[in-house]
Amino acid sequence: MSSPKDLSTLPTPPACIADFCIIPIGTGSASVSKEVAEVQRLLRGCGLVVSMHSAGSTVEGSWDDVMKVIGQCHSLLHGNGVVRIQNDIRVGTRTDKKQTSREKVEKVEMLLREGE
Amino acid sequence: MSSPKDLSTLPTPPACIADFCIIPIGTGSASVSKEVAEVQRLLRGCGLVVSMHSAGSTVEGSWDDVMKVIGQCHSLLHGNGVVRIQNDIRVGTRTDKKQTSREKVEKVEMLLREGE
Amino acid sequence: MSSPKDLSTLPTPPACIADFCIIPIGTGSASVSKEVAEVQRLLRGCGLVVSMHSAGSTVEGSWDDVMKVIGQCHSLLHGNGVVRIQNDIRVGTRTDKKQTSREKVEKVEMLLREGE
Amino acid sequence: MSSPKDLSTLPTPPACIADFCIIPIGTGSASVSKEVAEVQRLLRGCGLVVSMHSAGSTVEGSWDDVMKVIGQCHSLLHGNGVVRIQNDIRVGTRTDKKQTSREKVEKVEMLLREGE
Repeated sequence: MSSPKDLSTLPTPPACIADFCIIPIGTGSASVSKEVAEVQRLLRGCGLVVSMHSAGSTVEGSWDDVMKVIGQCHSLLHGNGVVRIQNDIRVGTRTDKKQTSREKVEKVEMLLREGE
Repeated sequence: MSSPKDLSTLPTPPACIADFCIIPIGTGSASVSKEVAEVQRLLRGCGLVVSMHSAGSTVEGSWDDVMKVIGQCHSLLHGNGVVRIQNDIRVGTRTDKKQTSREKVEKVEMLLREGE
Repeated sequence: MSSPKDLSTLPTPPACIADFCIIPIGTGSASVSKEVAEVQRLLRGCGLVVSMHSAGSTVEGSWDDVMKVIGQCHSLLHGNGVVRIQNDIRVGTRTDKKQTSREKVEKVEMLLREGE
Repeated sequence: MSSPKDLSTLPTPPACIADFCIIPIGTGSASVSKEVAEVQRLLRGCGLVVSMHSAGSTVEGSWDDVMKVIGQCHSLLHGNGVVRIQNDIRVGTRTDKKQTSREKVEKVEMLLREGE
């Protein structure tokens, strides 16, 4: 009842914030910093809003653009010889308002100051 | 050195296995089973290999097809009135061999039997 | 205002369902089935309700028991020579009712049948 | 062969870095900033190294201490009326060296500068 007849024509969301933690498997090295740097370099050239923290990389844009560039990160690492990759993507979408990742943090920090 | 000049032309992976746990936020209900059922209904009609377990839904196919249908799941729930969605996607790609989600489980179960 | 004075005395939840995907890093092998089998063997002997699917292992019990056994899985793999481990844990707690992982799936399957 | 006889006596790891994204369910509000601020306030008083970014909170310490405080975050929100919580925890352990979350970011940033 609540679903459209042909779900295959549903669009993907116009905006999302995705935070991902990409893990190369089988490289023989316990370090992942080289791969994370390559991912960051690709992200910073992709035209979307990106940032980095100790547990992942964050990218903002349309669902299709964001997922395309994350997939390209996989291909980049595979092209450099990583045979297997596991990735954890936290992705959020909302229809009530636009909010950047920076605004999310600022709102929490404002609440923390108010509570002091 | 190891990166191609124009990273924007990198393709996305031809195959992936994604397992996702979609959470509607702000619905006023602690139950998410209705939303999970809607997501499963969409997935089962999308033509990809899908399955379900207590902590998520699994879908296999090309990166683009898989990410498109997961994005459509967001749009489906938004269209039904859910204003905010958070999703955790575990996605794996590999270039050394093709392996389905079923084969992954079967291999572990074989090892468990051998170890007995 | 809404927080107790001494938060350090807060208890941990009496029940949770955790689903985790443990990734050994730096093993030199793209296969993780051996490690997943070892984790399953430990889980199946721990006295908690456990199950497995293609994207992870699920364990139910008190917060402390569940997190202890997941930590022991890390130690088990480290003891077998894995120098680095990354783990993605989806964990849920609720106060409105008790629901097992099996019941979560059964409720969705019931909704899917009703919708046909 | 490779496993000790009694796995139940395995210790949990002496150190870990956990990054978690806690989602209150059924609150009727699409905003989660109030809950995130409460979590941050608890974390900042717990004696462990903590930080925050747009997609989560990061905490470093022994496995037991870290998991205890994350569980207390659940109890704190439940105590404030949130009946259901879903949490995504990315947790890493390693035996080859000690590395803080700050050092992880600094190493990637160094590689990015070198590559310019």
